[in-house]
Amino acid sequence: MRGHLCTASRVDTECETDSDSETMRCISCKEYYSRCDAGTCKECYEEASDTEEELKREIEDLKAKVAFLRFWSPLDLHITHRSPAGPCFTDVVLIASSDDGFIGTPSVPVPAHKAVLVSRSPVFKAMLENEMEESRSGTIKISDVSYDALRSFVNYLYTAEACLDEQMACDLLVLAEKYEVKHLKAYCEKFLVSKLNWDNSVMSYAFAHQHNAKHMLETALSLITDNMDKLTKRKEYIELVEEDPRLVVEIYEAYLSKQVNTAAHKDSSSMKP
Amino acid sequence: MRGHLCTASRVDTECETDSDSETMRCISCKEYYSRCDAGTCKECYEEASDTEEELKREIEDLKAKVAFLRFWSPLDLHITHRSPAGPCFTDVVLIASSDDGFIGTPSVPVPAHKAVLVSRSPVFKAMLENEMEESRSGTIKISDVSYDALRSFVNYLYTAEACLDEQMACDLLVLAEKYEVKHLKAYCEKFLVSKLNWDNSVMSYAFAHQHNAKHMLETALSLITDNMDKLTKRKEYIELVEEDPRLVVEIYEAYLSKQVNTAAHKDSSSMKP
Repeated sequence: MRGHLCTASRVDTECETDSDSETMRCISCKEYYSRCDAGTCKECYEEASDTEEELKREIEDLKAKVAFLRFWSPLDLHITHRSPAGPCFTDVVLIASSDDGFIGTPSVPVPAHKAVLVSRSPVFKAMLENEMEESRSGTIKISDVSYDALRSFVNYLYTAEACLDEQMACDLLVLAEKYEVKHLKAYCEKFLVSKLNWDNSVMSYAFAHQHNAKHMLETALSLITDNMDKLTKRKEYIELVEEDPRLVVEIYEAYLSKQVNTAAHKDSSSMKP
Repeated sequence: MRGHLCTASRVDTECETDSDSETMRCISCKEYYSRCDAGTCKECYEEASDTEEELKREIEDLKAKVAFLRFWSPLDLHITHRSPAGPCFTDVVLIASSDDGFIGTPSVPVPAHKAVLVSRSPVFKAMLENEMEESRSGTIKISDVSYDALRSFVNYLYTAEACLDEQMACDLLVLAEKYEVKHLKAYCEKFLVSKLNWDNSVMSYAFAHQHNAKHMLETALSLITDNMDKLTKRKEYIELVEEDPRLVVEIYEAYLSKQVNTAAHKDSSSMKP
């Protein structure tokens, strides 16, 4: 037997090996495997198990902390939103309004605490701490937003949670951008990136551009430049050329730069001995 | 060569094995190891790596959430505590007082928001929502507590963070128990359990008993019953017999139950074929 490193006694007492063949037994899944499929040594396996346990404990601790720090749930907010001066000690209301003021049905006010708004958004902080009109009147008008989006926005400031679909993610990203709520913006952007596809790529690219969503912009751009042959026939493309040709120029610049990089990569590969 | 499961071509192309011996190379630490020290198969290694990455991402997400949900830092609270009606929109103050009222130096009031107190503690919730004296006056007197402990307590309600030593952990555990702030109680208890030793075991046992700290109680009791031969000579033991003999009875009961269990375990072991 060539090069067997175990002494006979070690094989008998310590090795988890099948004595009739050269297979070994995996400590994790308990299946037999051959040398070809060997993964880690025992020491690394044990270290990895310890690490995993530690990480899981850390996650439990953090989840408990989040639960502790979170304010009430959307449902609680719903229950109390009709009595803003009620037992929740709110001291400000937010009202969704269109650009034309209150034409149409006036929105139901969403009650909140100045302290919470100030702690979550530098824009609310400047607005409320500097004795501007909003602080004196206790009313903050938020333009161009639906009541549902405003309610979800305020709720997120309390709970760090939102129930998203694509429309809501766009609406909340716009609000998060406007009021500088970075955590919410990142949350919405991550959701929208997960929903990116060829069909919505041009619209998403323009949206991401408008609202400084860098990760979304890059992902959409990469999707578009991978399918340049199909681009010019699309309705969204033709509209974008009309409405914002600079954005179209940026698409072509990204495409060109990708081509140059790919060519350079091929050159350097082919030059290898 | 006995039972080698790899075909020649697989050995050349896929196996990370040393061709001159029966050793394998660990995918994780890159060291060679023998069959005796084999840990996992390759598939389990890859799964474990993916899991670890996922757990780490989850931890990052949770940490960002905690940072978002946390209110200001202790330092901020310190800066603003002299102007409770200032730009922080606080609507209540907490005052540390001894049992005799304000004899001695009156404490500096610690400003807070009713909404935060109510959201963190069922006791504050009942107190402030039911129009009790505290709600009307905007002043909550907290008896038998130092200013520092009160300040740390309020700060924890905003940030889920506290800087603990053993005295502070005891003080905060008492407050957490009184105002039913479970998260803080668990945090202090965990800290105190980590500081348990033979010297402080009897005191800790009595403290844990008094404040319903179950995990601390069990750990202290286990430490004591492991050292029964040294117990009766201790000053703390003699004092406890004087002050609260029922607690001493519980120690003996735990000791007895441990002995019975150990004996039963030995019996069942010796009866095995």
